[in-house]
Amino acid sequence: MDNFLNSTSVVPEFVGASKAGDTIGMCIPSVDPLLLDQLHVEKKYSVIGLLSARTGAGPQIMAMDEGVKATNTECIDVEWPRDTKGGGGHGSLIIIGGYDPSDVRQAITVALDNLHRTLGDVYNSAAGHLELQYTARAAGAAHLGLGAVEGKAYGLICGCPSGIGVVMADTALKTAGVHVISFASPSHGTSFSNEGTLHIYGDSGAVRQSVIAGREVGLKLLSQLGDTPVNDFPAYIH
Amino acid sequence: MDNFLNSTSVVPEFVGASKAGDTIGMCIPSVDPLLLDQLHVEKKYSVIGLLSARTGAGPQIMAMDEGVKATNTECIDVEWPRDTKGGGGHGSLIIIGGYDPSDVRQAITVALDNLHRTLGDVYNSAAGHLELQYTARAAGAAHLGLGAVEGKAYGLICGCPSGIGVVMADTALKTAGVHVISFASPSHGTSFSNEGTLHIYGDSGAVRQSVIAGREVGLKLLSQLGDTPVNDFPAYIH
Amino acid sequence: MDNFLNSTSVVPEFVGASKAGDTIGMCIPSVDPLLLDQLHVEKKYSVIGLLSARTGAGPQIMAMDEGVKATNTECIDVEWPRDTKGGGGHGSLIIIGGYDPSDVRQAITVALDNLHRTLGDVYNSAAGHLELQYTARAAGAAHLGLGAVEGKAYGLICGCPSGIGVVMADTALKTAGVHVISFASPSHGTSFSNEGTLHIYGDSGAVRQSVIAGREVGLKLLSQLGDTPVNDFPAYIH
Repeated sequence: MDNFLNSTSVVPEFVGASKAGDTIGMCIPSVDPLLLDQLHVEKKYSVIGLLSARTGAGPQIMAMDEGVKATNTECIDVEWPRDTKGGGGHGSLIIIGGYDPSDVRQAITVALDNLHRTLGDVYNSAAGHLELQYTARAAGAAHLGLGAVEGKAYGLICGCPSGIGVVMADTALKTAGVHVISFASPSHGTSFSNEGTLHIYGDSGAVRQSVIAGREVGLKLLSQLGDTPVNDFPAYIH
Repeated sequence: MDNFLNSTSVVPEFVGASKAGDTIGMCIPSVDPLLLDQLHVEKKYSVIGLLSARTGAGPQIMAMDEGVKATNTECIDVEWPRDTKGGGGHGSLIIIGGYDPSDVRQAITVALDNLHRTLGDVYNSAAGHLELQYTARAAGAAHLGLGAVEGKAYGLICGCPSGIGVVMADTALKTAGVHVISFASPSHGTSFSNEGTLHIYGDSGAVRQSVIAGREVGLKLLSQLGDTPVNDFPAYIH
Repeated sequence: MDNFLNSTSVVPEFVGASKAGDTIGMCIPSVDPLLLDQLHVEKKYSVIGLLSARTGAGPQIMAMDEGVKATNTECIDVEWPRDTKGGGGHGSLIIIGGYDPSDVRQAITVALDNLHRTLGDVYNSAAGHLELQYTARAAGAAHLGLGAVEGKAYGLICGCPSGIGVVMADTALKTAGVHVISFASPSHGTSFSNEGTLHIYGDSGAVRQSVIAGREVGLKLLSQLGDTPVNDFPAYIH
């Protein structure tokens, strides 16, 4: 599960792929103007990069955040399919723009390289899942996709089924003094996913503490529905 | 499948859980005000109860209806994830409010106790499912979640794939003189579930007759797509 | 998988069914007026036909297009559940209206007869799917459901995960001079499916060339996520 696919693609647009979340990265060096007119992008670049996944939105967005930090590119669209192949969450479609194809390809590569890390605090069981994210300094992908404040610490605390996310959010907010960006639930702020998700920002220590506290209660609650949730990659939030 | 999980939870918010629909019940005795501001509740109680499920909305709402009838609590939010773990229907997030944590915990417990009954007329096959609900006297959860008229008999007639629900609805309405609350379909009144669902109210005998007639034709139609649909718990509508 | 179910249904509304996509066809010779008021149909016929599926919208709509072409019926509603039983696409609910039940039953039968053909260019792998459709002359179902221009050639180019559909669309538009109807993506123009879908019209040769070019690049890209995508029925677009 943890290897990039060793590709000998004959499609020039292909950049890389990962079995993790069925994630594929691509770059179009010069988008057809007829298509560009139809895309819901913030800014019309003719060089675009695509990170697209069946399973996972937060992990791909946080990974893309590293990609845009590391290159001269910009995140111009984040879309939220209700996917996860039968799971209760989202997949993702992330579009970035740039001036140079090699920059855009580099940004996508950095994102794919970060994906195992940002999947580290995703915990799955037969009954549901948890997702935690944390960054000390959010950039443009986390801003556009998750509402993070650029340049500030950001945290995401998510539980499925969604009621677990409500209790995780309550615990997180009682743990440390952080600012609430939003709370998303099945009928508000999601694509009808079965998730309760708190987005927070503030002092980096406080945000991290909140995220860790949310994770702890989430793991206990989700375990009540059967087996203990497990992560496929090492946790990165300590 | 039919046992409550015997929990020794260390999380005080935990009330109970059921493998049926991966349903978890919780109570927050004093919600953090920052979170309460973000919840889409009808009325801001600081004591809230949560009933959250991967599979099933009607059954959980009807079960919660008994919970609010039996206690001094109120249903303040019903949300509809597009879930069911790969099936064609909804999961649910139900929030109740009260003045006393023990009341709220009691309401959630009553709901969990009723869940096997309200799942009694859910029939599944590999191709789809049917759901029937009936109550002689609807209360606040059925009102907020399903549009039922409080104090009156209410019936729900649902089929998946959705076209089966259209024929079930037609048969139900031709069977007895009932009032239509609404008809929900994939693009109207659902979270894009693959269900056709008729909501009715009226005289209790007429509503029951309509529901039974819808069930009969639904079972025959869904059987045409392969195996005979079966219920996991005994049917309760006679 | 490819046989119609040999039915001895006792439900008069039943017309036929197919395991392909869990598709069921039905006809209500005289819809209850209370139900008709609740349906979101373009025109209120009392004789309605239903084609309803768990998996597939394009194939069923294109099949229904042949049904309405062949009979004195009209497509009056197309709805898009987010279904496919855990896959990344849509199911469908298609409603047609007519003056004569035998006409409507005939239209549904023609649609069911065409379903294996219109499923011919649907390619599935564990990671995602592709769908291609083409007609030299679109009729009312393709118009209402897909935005096709009636009487003109129409093409559909779809990939899942959705980023693959973006690259397929770009390639298709660079291949031949066609007109864009729309491009649908997870958050715009779908029911949150994980698909990128280009709808085009124009000269029949150009549309066909575009569709074939999109298919070629799509197959290569989706193969990068694991196994080679395969179709269950013979491809029909040459």
